[in-house]
Amino acid sequence: MRTVKEQALACRAAAQQVAELDGAARNALLLAMAAQLEQDEAQILAANAQDMAAAAARGTAAALLDRLRLDAARVAAMVAGVRHVAGLPDPVGQVTREDVRADGLRIQRVRVPLGVIAMIYEARPNVTADAAALCLKAGNGVILRGGSEAQQSNRAIAASLGRALQACCIGAAAVSALEDLRRESIIELLQLSDIVDLAIPRGGEGLIRFAAEHARVPLIKHYKGVCHLFVDASADTALALRLLIDGKTTRPAVCNALETLLVHADIAAQFLPLAAAALQARGVEVRACERSRDFFAGSRPATEADYAAEFLDLVLAVRVVDDLDAAIAHIRSYGSDHTEVIATGEPVQAQRFIQALRSAVIMVNASSRFSDGGELGLGAEIGISTTRLHAYGPMGAESLTIERYVVSGTGQVRHPQ
Amino acid sequence: MRTVKEQALACRAAAQQVAELDGAARNALLLAMAAQLEQDEAQILAANAQDMAAAAARGTAAALLDRLRLDAARVAAMVAGVRHVAGLPDPVGQVTREDVRADGLRIQRVRVPLGVIAMIYEARPNVTADAAALCLKAGNGVILRGGSEAQQSNRAIAASLGRALQACCIGAAAVSALEDLRRESIIELLQLSDIVDLAIPRGGEGLIRFAAEHARVPLIKHYKGVCHLFVDASADTALALRLLIDGKTTRPAVCNALETLLVHADIAAQFLPLAAAALQARGVEVRACERSRDFFAGSRPATEADYAAEFLDLVLAVRVVDDLDAAIAHIRSYGSDHTEVIATGEPVQAQRFIQALRSAVIMVNASSRFSDGGELGLGAEIGISTTRLHAYGPMGAESLTIERYVVSGTGQVRHPQ
Repeated sequence: MRTVKEQALACRAAAQQVAELDGAARNALLLAMAAQLEQDEAQILAANAQDMAAAAARGTAAALLDRLRLDAARVAAMVAGVRHVAGLPDPVGQVTREDVRADGLRIQRVRVPLGVIAMIYEARPNVTADAAALCLKAGNGVILRGGSEAQQSNRAIAASLGRALQACCIGAAAVSALEDLRRESIIELLQLSDIVDLAIPRGGEGLIRFAAEHARVPLIKHYKGVCHLFVDASADTALALRLLIDGKTTRPAVCNALETLLVHADIAAQFLPLAAAALQARGVEVRACERSRDFFAGSRPATEADYAAEFLDLVLAVRVVDDLDAAIAHIRSYGSDHTEVIATGEPVQAQRFIQALRSAVIMVNASSRFSDGGELGLGAEIGISTTRLHAYGPMGAESLTIERYVVSGTGQVRHPQ
Repeated sequence: MRTVKEQALACRAAAQQVAELDGAARNALLLAMAAQLEQDEAQILAANAQDMAAAAARGTAAALLDRLRLDAARVAAMVAGVRHVAGLPDPVGQVTREDVRADGLRIQRVRVPLGVIAMIYEARPNVTADAAALCLKAGNGVILRGGSEAQQSNRAIAASLGRALQACCIGAAAVSALEDLRRESIIELLQLSDIVDLAIPRGGEGLIRFAAEHARVPLIKHYKGVCHLFVDASADTALALRLLIDGKTTRPAVCNALETLLVHADIAAQFLPLAAAALQARGVEVRACERSRDFFAGSRPATEADYAAEFLDLVLAVRVVDDLDAAIAHIRSYGSDHTEVIATGEPVQAQRFIQALRSAVIMVNASSRFSDGGELGLGAEIGISTTRLHAYGPMGAESLTIERYVVSGTGQVRHPQ
């Protein structure tokens, strides 16, 4: 078994080869990766069956088993995902600014790959292929450290991708699944500050706090999404109700689902009965504030903990607030900087909501569920950053690059002699 | 004395006020800060005289005393710097991308302030005003932790800026000089990950390593600049000589000065005699490789340590290399990702140099000394990042902001029911 550092150095060397490819060659690499995954389907499914058997023997919960499971359809989706990334626009080499100075010096800002990206994630083995595709699309190498429950699946997927790389004369280490699966190996990886350019932990809050605690390399965190819908006094109630139902009930376990409904006092008596009926019909449990409890028969009173919670389930906190400023104050106290929604008929109120809140995504009269790289036009996403640096909100291939300066002259100097 | 956390919380509250100002109001704030500094000149100089006296009593070296010293001209330069920043374009609120989806959803990416920035720096008190101006220009608050040698000066400058803020109804804490001057206070500041959005350490390598070691908040490092000039076989020797002299001798103590000259073997016999004469005439000490020592009478042989050194002085390492690839390999081994220069007559060689190197700034036939925010069109800079994330190379006001999403609709949902 190679050490973490040996694997990281090998990844850096191979990443340098990827960085020197042009966009067409990188896309060809991705297509070769997709074809190889298709070809290796039987091996990948066999490896996954081993993970599933071991997980079942440990008495793993059904929901987790479902996340771990691969089948022909899921492998096909993985393959389609890699092909989709191949077809996206190439961020590398983009000239984002260009100036020519009076003395003829031409200054360009140009996008280049970050280098080596470490992905640390939990049970879902499809992340292995998704993350590898996006990292390579942007000219990077990637070191993957998935959950130990999925170790055979991840190893089989990475080995398959490695074969495709080698067939294209690129070091297989450009996609490296960490061989050392001790928890300490994550710490080692997160401290290789001369080799790893960025770490992206994806998973539960525990994993992310663990990574943040130990990292010496730059880290982009994807904390929880405590997303709010504020229904302003001027809102169209039918519109607000659509946003509420879409945000809370269509996929409650994801980070862009709504967790708290805030309602302007002036519209509470009109809106809350509609909300109560629609939520009840869909089996949503409500935790209501003093002023709204009468509208939700049998609801539990909302606590401080409820306002801060990411329920990831059919549970909703509800609070009536005096006005927009009270809604803003609530979100500043309890929010997670992910996504906030306002339903309003007044552009001035929308503007104030946008201006006062620092969340990564603000929705005006649109569902929180659009807070997603695919929906917002990135083509694919490697996560949703709640770190207020480098990338904020959904991150696509462009977020895996950095702009640098290329300056061309004809012998210009700063102090001519 | 307030604790570090108390000061940071106060800064965050005041930063929120700054973030809500529009660009005109932020510029007015900067002009008020400049006027207040002018008005408080006598107090600032008196405080600086205390620092100077204490430093002299400790037997501080002349170079450091010069960096610490303020006089009327330096205060005037500080004031002019703040006014200059007020006149720069406003990065906040810029819409960097805009799309309208087929369903009418309008997606904007918009620049917003980062929040609270912690600056940790060494002796020069003018950094206090410069950093405050750029941070506030970009809508942020700033916590300043300057060197203890400059504590009276920094306190006087921050107090003056605070008076200007208060006169504009903004909390003085938007510019906070850390009151606690123990070294542990830096660690505390760097671990306030729920309050501080970015830390920028500026100074010697020791300070930066110390900060990187202890930080739990995102950090942008400004490590040393080991800048290279590669003279290709096809270079115009007169042009290459201009770049060498400008890069090495006009201000050797700064990070964009040249440290190592690499010369293609095919042009060595032609270029090195010219270089030797010009360097000798300017008192530059040369550390030469085996193949170049004969051209530099009395030079010391270059060691591994010389190739990795940031001399910050009139000292230059010289090495003859077989070709462009050998130059690239040298820079990859010994470079610091800051700025590299190629002198060449062949665009293909320039392209290969650009493609193969990952440094923040690449100069083709232009002096390394242009690697500076002012020269590259940023108007002013808060430092030069060698961290390959968020900002890479010279950082201006724009690098103190982040893009987020603002999405406007008319009730669109992801799963219409």
